[in-house]
Amino acid sequence: MSASSSSCTNPMAGEEAKGGVTVLPVVEDKYGGVMTEISHPMDPSAFSALLQSSLSSWTLQGKKGVWIKLPRQLIGLAEAAVKEGFWFHHAEKDYLMLVYWIPIEGDTIPSNASHRVGIGAFVINHNKEVLVVQEKTGRFQGQGIWKFPTGVVNEGEYIHDGSVREVKEETGVDTEFVQVLAFRQTHKAFFGKSDLFFVCMLKPLSLEINAQETEIEAAQWMPWDEYTKQPFVQNHELLRYMTAICSAKANGDYEGFTPLRVSAPDQQGNLYFNTRDLR
Amino acid sequence: MSASSSSCTNPMAGEEAKGGVTVLPVVEDKYGGVMTEISHPMDPSAFSALLQSSLSSWTLQGKKGVWIKLPRQLIGLAEAAVKEGFWFHHAEKDYLMLVYWIPIEGDTIPSNASHRVGIGAFVINHNKEVLVVQEKTGRFQGQGIWKFPTGVVNEGEYIHDGSVREVKEETGVDTEFVQVLAFRQTHKAFFGKSDLFFVCMLKPLSLEINAQETEIEAAQWMPWDEYTKQPFVQNHELLRYMTAICSAKANGDYEGFTPLRVSAPDQQGNLYFNTRDLR
Repeated sequence: MSASSSSCTNPMAGEEAKGGVTVLPVVEDKYGGVMTEISHPMDPSAFSALLQSSLSSWTLQGKKGVWIKLPRQLIGLAEAAVKEGFWFHHAEKDYLMLVYWIPIEGDTIPSNASHRVGIGAFVINHNKEVLVVQEKTGRFQGQGIWKFPTGVVNEGEYIHDGSVREVKEETGVDTEFVQVLAFRQTHKAFFGKSDLFFVCMLKPLSLEINAQETEIEAAQWMPWDEYTKQPFVQNHELLRYMTAICSAKANGDYEGFTPLRVSAPDQQGNLYFNTRDLR
Repeated sequence: MSASSSSCTNPMAGEEAKGGVTVLPVVEDKYGGVMTEISHPMDPSAFSALLQSSLSSWTLQGKKGVWIKLPRQLIGLAEAAVKEGFWFHHAEKDYLMLVYWIPIEGDTIPSNASHRVGIGAFVINHNKEVLVVQEKTGRFQGQGIWKFPTGVVNEGEYIHDGSVREVKEETGVDTEFVQVLAFRQTHKAFFGKSDLFFVCMLKPLSLEINAQETEIEAAQWMPWDEYTKQPFVQNHELLRYMTAICSAKANGDYEGFTPLRVSAPDQQGNLYFNTRDLR
């Protein structure tokens, strides 16, 4: 199915299908599916009848996937769709997307977004001091642990932009993105979703610290050796690796992936790769 | 909020809060929030009344985020929650998660999964032939374009496992994962979600091709030079870069990120990094 968000006209009006049956107005996708976006209130029993006649019509037409986009304010219509066999595909703040598969063979409905993306920022200055924070809430709260600034990359945000933003928000320090040094993939991180965490090196453009009040207990420039000597770092296999990678990078011996803006006919994007080895 | 999926007891029974008010049973999270999972049918007006008294009680207790997990079969209760100000956080096939924020200050509710993860597999044999396919559906259908096997990494699946699985499914060829050579991040790819696409090198362990009937029109081993000469590759900035990276890798001049299983106190994961430079 397509990612089209084209909106339909008033579904209350319905449309005349072949044979004079009233069906929901749809947008077709290039995978043999149809999507209807409900935009006006209607009586649940009227919706139910309209949905039944529509499904009959789409079945005759050989349609495959059927998508119903329900705005939050019309959630009262969801029950009728579930009774017809629809299930949930995904939801965002203001809508629920329901889906149904007409053919007898197994469905090829694309899966929902599966991963959250996070970053950890390695910011080291000319005195071999690293930018570290203590967090006010969460797992490390009140343990006196100094850690890299971390955060979540937003939907629609590039990893390098997200890193620069998080460092600025948490510490007030301006930075320039250098490289992705490594990434980690884990599962069942959050509501059963998977997680991709990118370790990024950034170059400081300013030194003055201005810690975020809401989330950060304290922030400082800490000598790199002092950071690595923390038991929290020493006793943590993943952090030991990350520390070794950052040390190698600080010494100029390590090459990560650098982002480059590249275009494809259909969309813009950033390609991250080992630019040194491609020279 | 926690990713806990602990289920509550029968919410119809409710619980006696201080002062004898009946409230929904909840599981508390470590961010000052509460989650209730509705597991039994109830009358929407009874649910509405219970939710109102619960919200009063949680407000007095200083609670912040309130989460309601509604199974698909009880979607008829969602309207009552929306009327109380709840919005949608996310949905999976069989449930809808609603959320509400009690404090006056802005919410710190964590975002929904934001990215889909895909792979493209560079599989080259000892004769400098690359494994390529033509797809039956989608963007490249019927254009005679030979491309790398590609696919979506499932929730809960490692990138390296997903690559090996997709190559096997599409072509029947067994492979061993070598490295992530590069990755691309794009936005608005699918229902507005972002997309991370990993270019992976795999070593063939078998040569016989057995193309997947449902999705693949044809599959073959194609001389690398012939692949790169396709206008489809030449006219596509992203593919030109990917091709240059794969050529460098095939010549032994390029180092990508190799996965290593590392543990953290709370979870297992794979760290992908430049292992050559860390030696």
